Amino acid sequence: MNQDYIVPAPWAVIEEGFERERVKSSESLFSIGNGAMGQRANFEEEYSGKTFQGSYIGGVYYPDKTRVGWWKNGYPEYFTKVLNAPSWIGIKVKVDGESLDLNTAKSVSKFRRELNMKEGWLGRSFEAELQNGTQLKVKSKRFLSLEHDELGAINYEVTPLNKDVSISYEPYLDSGITNEDTNWDDKFWNTLEVAEDGNKAFISAHTMKTFFYVCTAMSNTFTVDGKEISLTLKTNKTDSYIGHVYETDIREGETFAIQKYAGYITSFNHDKDDLKKAATSVLDIALEEGFDSLLSKQKEDWAAIWSMADIVIEGDVKAQQGIRFNIFQLNQTYLGKDARLNIGPKGFTGEKYGGSTYWDTEAYCLPFYMATKDQEVARNLLTYRYNHLEKAIENAQKLGFKNGAALYPMVTMNGEECHNEWEITFEEIHRNGAMIFAIRDYVNYTGDYSYIPEKGLEVMIAVARFWKQRATWSAKKEQFVILGVTGPNEYENNVNNNFYTNYLAKWCLSYAVEHTKKVAKEFSSDYKRIAEVTGVSNEELNSWINISEKMYLPFSEEEGVYLQQDGFLDKELVTVADLDKAERPINQKWSWDRILRSPYIKQADTLQGFYVFEDHFTEEELKKHFDFYEPFTVHESSLSPCVHAIQAAKLGQMDQAYEFYLRTSRLDLDDYNKEVHEGLHITSMAGTWMSVVEGFGGMRIKDDMLSFAPKMPKAWEGFSFKLNFRNQILKVAVGKDKYIFSLDTGDDLDILVDGKQIRVTSDAAVEV
Amino acid sequence: MNQDYIVPAPWAVIEEGFERERVKSSESLFSIGNGAMGQRANFEEEYSGKTFQGSYIGGVYYPDKTRVGWWKNGYPEYFTKVLNAPSWIGIKVKVDGESLDLNTAKSVSKFRRELNMKEGWLGRSFEAELQNGTQLKVKSKRFLSLEHDELGAINYEVTPLNKDVSISYEPYLDSGITNEDTNWDDKFWNTLEVAEDGNKAFISAHTMKTFFYVCTAMSNTFTVDGKEISLTLKTNKTDSYIGHVYETDIREGETFAIQKYAGYITSFNHDKDDLKKAATSVLDIALEEGFDSLLSKQKEDWAAIWSMADIVIEGDVKAQQGIRFNIFQLNQTYLGKDARLNIGPKGFTGEKYGGSTYWDTEAYCLPFYMATKDQEVARNLLTYRYNHLEKAIENAQKLGFKNGAALYPMVTMNGEECHNEWEITFEEIHRNGAMIFAIRDYVNYTGDYSYIPEKGLEVMIAVARFWKQRATWSAKKEQFVILGVTGPNEYENNVNNNFYTNYLAKWCLSYAVEHTKKVAKEFSSDYKRIAEVTGVSNEELNSWINISEKMYLPFSEEEGVYLQQDGFLDKELVTVADLDKAERPINQKWSWDRILRSPYIKQADTLQGFYVFEDHFTEEELKKHFDFYEPFTVHESSLSPCVHAIQAAKLGQMDQAYEFYLRTSRLDLDDYNKEVHEGLHITSMAGTWMSVVEGFGGMRIKDDMLSFAPKMPKAWEGFSFKLNFRNQILKVAVGKDKYIFSLDTGDDLDILVDGKQIRVTSDAAVEV
Repeated sequence: MNQDYIVPAPWAVIEEGFERERVKSSESLFSIGNGAMGQRANFEEEYSGKTFQGSYIGGVYYPDKTRVGWWKNGYPEYFTKVLNAPSWIGIKVKVDGESLDLNTAKSVSKFRRELNMKEGWLGRSFEAELQNGTQLKVKSKRFLSLEHDELGAINYEVTPLNKDVSISYEPYLDSGITNEDTNWDDKFWNTLEVAEDGNKAFISAHTMKTFFYVCTAMSNTFTVDGKEISLTLKTNKTDSYIGHVYETDIREGETFAIQKYAGYITSFNHDKDDLKKAATSVLDIALEEGFDSLLSKQKEDWAAIWSMADIVIEGDVKAQQGIRFNIFQLNQTYLGKDARLNIGPKGFTGEKYGGSTYWDTEAYCLPFYMATKDQEVARNLLTYRYNHLEKAIENAQKLGFKNGAALYPMVTMNGEECHNEWEITFEEIHRNGAMIFAIRDYVNYTGDYSYIPEKGLEVMIAVARFWKQRATWSAKKEQFVILGVTGPNEYENNVNNNFYTNYLAKWCLSYAVEHTKKVAKEFSSDYKRIAEVTGVSNEELNSWINISEKMYLPFSEEEGVYLQQDGFLDKELVTVADLDKAERPINQKWSWDRILRSPYIKQADTLQGFYVFEDHFTEEELKKHFDFYEPFTVHESSLSPCVHAIQAAKLGQMDQAYEFYLRTSRLDLDDYNKEVHEGLHITSMAGTWMSVVEGFGGMRIKDDMLSFAPKMPKAWEGFSFKLNFRNQILKVAVGKDKYIFSLDTGDDLDILVDGKQIRVTSDAAVEV
Repeated sequence: MNQDYIVPAPWAVIEEGFERERVKSSESLFSIGNGAMGQRANFEEEYSGKTFQGSYIGGVYYPDKTRVGWWKNGYPEYFTKVLNAPSWIGIKVKVDGESLDLNTAKSVSKFRRELNMKEGWLGRSFEAELQNGTQLKVKSKRFLSLEHDELGAINYEVTPLNKDVSISYEPYLDSGITNEDTNWDDKFWNTLEVAEDGNKAFISAHTMKTFFYVCTAMSNTFTVDGKEISLTLKTNKTDSYIGHVYETDIREGETFAIQKYAGYITSFNHDKDDLKKAATSVLDIALEEGFDSLLSKQKEDWAAIWSMADIVIEGDVKAQQGIRFNIFQLNQTYLGKDARLNIGPKGFTGEKYGGSTYWDTEAYCLPFYMATKDQEVARNLLTYRYNHLEKAIENAQKLGFKNGAALYPMVTMNGEECHNEWEITFEEIHRNGAMIFAIRDYVNYTGDYSYIPEKGLEVMIAVARFWKQRATWSAKKEQFVILGVTGPNEYENNVNNNFYTNYLAKWCLSYAVEHTKKVAKEFSSDYKRIAEVTGVSNEELNSWINISEKMYLPFSEEEGVYLQQDGFLDKELVTVADLDKAERPINQKWSWDRILRSPYIKQADTLQGFYVFEDHFTEEELKKHFDFYEPFTVHESSLSPCVHAIQAAKLGQMDQAYEFYLRTSRLDLDDYNKEVHEGLHITSMAGTWMSVVEGFGGMRIKDDMLSFAPKMPKAWEGFSFKLNFRNQILKVAVGKDKYIFSLDTGDDLDILVDGKQIRVTSDAAVEV
């Protein structure tokens, strides 16, 4: 563990005490979001110390021109990134003419931050003594409204403690912002208008190149000791800034508060000519409702989310805090309302990885959203890829593939590939298979087969065509091989016959054949449309079957395991336990070539295959592969421990499972990888949910039924979670000696518990 | 062949007719150099069309900050590049106030360029009609002096053809220049002073970061119809420019000429405070000698070079022009006077590849310089690497190697690695072996064993230590393997057990043992010093022997060939002949992954091993490997055809050998790869020399003797070349029915001809 300043608490993330070195990390950890926009926990008042400013708007991006050392054919021209948007949170505070700035204040005490996950707000309080001797108490609370998802609200209050003072607030908007992450120091925003209307202020700007129009707007109200007061304003204005200055005299002990209402209205959701009008409406709603009323609605809305998504862990407050933090951040990032949006690896908490969509969505996030939201949300995630199918076909064409083959991008915002490392961009092609098992998982879980004839089959056909062309015949092996790939373990590049990739390709081909035939038989009008669009034929299906059947899978008779790739056994097989700790993490200590020729595995690879295709292998096989690969796994990807946790739990290795669980659930809170200042690991948070539900709960879908095989870590007294299964809400509570299953409403539900079929009814809980 | 505008001529490169699209290509082809500096064939007068300005100074470089998409541990911070230096050639010409500019002139006719290779100068002539109706005849001639290698001289003359006119010349110096190739648009030069003294002008500047101080200087004289005249000057001056304007009236038919003497005096060779004084001395010498006298000395100096280095080909003027162009450019680039300099892939003709040193020097250039220069020149090339040994050890340390292991850089200027593609920088490690076989080649050819105890052994030990640590034990194969490398064929990356690399490592280890033992026995004082510095021990030698003996070499019993790498036979083995021509060159048509999984070979790889270690393999084995690998070789590296030419000739496949020869010798003249505008392929030109001498001449060293096995292409009547062998000059003339060997001077020389020993004496030629 690398840090321990986060105070354990079941429903909150709490920081006590002010330390400059923690500011950037806390800015990530205390981020807020509402699925449509997000805000790092930057201070409202000025701060001259080290900080990483970040305000982000879902779907608003900038295509940053690719930067490489040596261009390779096929590289995309742009890396599309979520960009830092005009600042809406800022409130400059002056007391008797001196700026409040925690970096320059004479002293700071009683500093406390709280991210209240239950109610969905961020609070901060502290006392400070300024250079001019004034002692102040400051409190702020802010949230991004779930109900009005273009709106943020801040209540900020200052109480002078040792004298009467003059306080001025300058709430402002600022579009003169930059990105931390930029390839060429491009200017990302063009400001069109800085305007005001009474106590409302507006900045209209558009992103360069992509021309997303955004109106950032604010309006402010004031109270003294809770009583509304009216103040006249002075305006400070530049080409890209507007501040409204409000000043008044405050007596010692009185509390002067500002309520800032602000937000983004964008052409992503409105006609670009109506943005200011729409912004005015949003501000009017906020002014009418007021801060307290908005906040109490916020609590209700979060209560609704939690009532479905919460996981309760008894007897282990750190584990409890960890899982809630993960669930909270996932919901802050994506609520599934809009099929154009997706879940970036850093959500709205940083800029790394461009804020775009990776295969993480299909492999890690989908199960969480399927089980904790309405079915439509998961379907929206699938539809996102369906809508990008044409671009995926174009992407494959750029790499020389033909005849409607699709290669989904490694990273994307709008369907176009953004990544530019050949070993990833061109070779980490297993991502293409994740699109297909996500469809399988969705259909198995929801029972909604209609997605396949309506949308999924076209994706399956295009992906099958890719695998057909990408596999080549080895005259030596007399089997089909897949050469030059990077598997999920990115610590091997350009290897031949990565087991995970080959197995996935083999399965994708046979799955596509199975469902093409099924749709042809059972959904003839859909099939007619699809056959027309794709030109798929029986001959083509036969060629897929042939490749699938003759796909080579590297296997060692001696070790009795599938090999991660052809050359794995030629490596020096020194386990992680025998590796000098000073050499860890290898991605920071070793040069790339050394990592590549080592046996160390960044994240589950062959074991990822055993996870995705669990029912294709026996538990004995799993044990054998887990025992072989786990000792070489360094888990230097956030996506790794959760898979190992689930498998360790299945194998009954509960101490190990618990260790992996803690690592995944508190990855950011405890900053295992010393990088939380860059933002949170949002997508791996869904892996944490899987660790509990699939790992400790043993949840699977078997024979169209929910199946459980609960196993509890020693440290826990009990745990419980809910699942939305085909529109019925099942609550699962696991205790030391018993499991309790209960249904919120609806028909009886048959489930499997440790292999036995049990009927749960909505009248009473079933104890097992 | 992609262009054919170069007029065939035995001793000159000639272009006739002015075409704008050819300007940048001709600027490369007509480049001049003197080993210390170089100049692209940019026009003296202003030219507003597309041009690539380039003036370069040997050893003066700029460390351009590395640009990559995704940083990997171990990448170097800088890419060191030869940089465009202040311009010294410019002469602005105005006629009746109108600038002479071939891009805007009303018409241009009789345009002719000649690069006179025999005498070492560039000439140009044309007639032009200006917009103001004046018709002019223009002639220029320029050269970079071999004798005074800080000096260039230009004679530029204008004759008005249809009226009396006023002509002004503005010879100038300009340090406000930029690089075509720059990572971050850095400013490369800082101008310190722009000064003049009578008709001498000076610009003092230094390179940013590296602080090379350079004084660029000029002085000019004038003639009308050959008679010296004196003109008063006006000065045009800015912060980074000085021009001297001379104007006079000239009658129709009279010729007004300017002689511009200019050049670079640098802190590479002088104290930085004495540069202006030294520049004045150089200009004074030039002014005293005058253009004609300097030029006639130039002819003498080139005659001396040619008397040793020329290859005469009878009956094939294109082949003749090709080989002379190659020999000429090599001599323009490097004359071997200074062990701090080396041979960049583009010499002084462009900026690509940074102008630094690659393994090309050891593998391709050394034989040429050994045979056509004094022995000291080749020794200087080896010493260059000896001087960089400490940096090579540091470079290896950065990648995790220990105990004095050295990894020579892929590209360098000062010993530090510059390259930044992991698959090359970290993995194309065979370059390390080239350092060692270069020592072997030098000792075998020159008989100068002293280099090994004095310098070479330390390099051998450090390189052996690298191989020891880089090879790993495969428990599966029970042999040592070398994982994750890029061989000479850069169309495969991160492969396991590249035959060439493994074989080279095996040999380097055993060669180091052999010579450590020999030096210990025969050069005890040297050994004592080396043992103290390196700490080499018998135990260490034994470990090298062990690895060398147990080195795995991939071999296919079925095909009867060594495999380029472990996975080669898994590829789809479609030959180049069966590849659609529209797909070529694959490096421009295919995405990188597709290239990597294809069987296509960029340049000799396994066959490179058969070239370097020719005497380790039988002719039958060579034939087998040539027949296996040649059909997959696309020769998309300039370094490829020469090796294949030599091997085809050895195998008696003369048509093929001749085809390869033409391809290597006229690569730039005929612009096979459509890139000559970027500069010439200097290092591969030495490969052309090898094609003739080793390929068609069959020259080898056997039992300490020169050995020949001449074979002539059908198209030729005969060919001849000279070799400096251990300070004796042997001339070899190959005719249709006979070979003639003659010695310039010295003792009798025993040589082998087609396996038979023959004595050549200095009295008379020997006919065989």
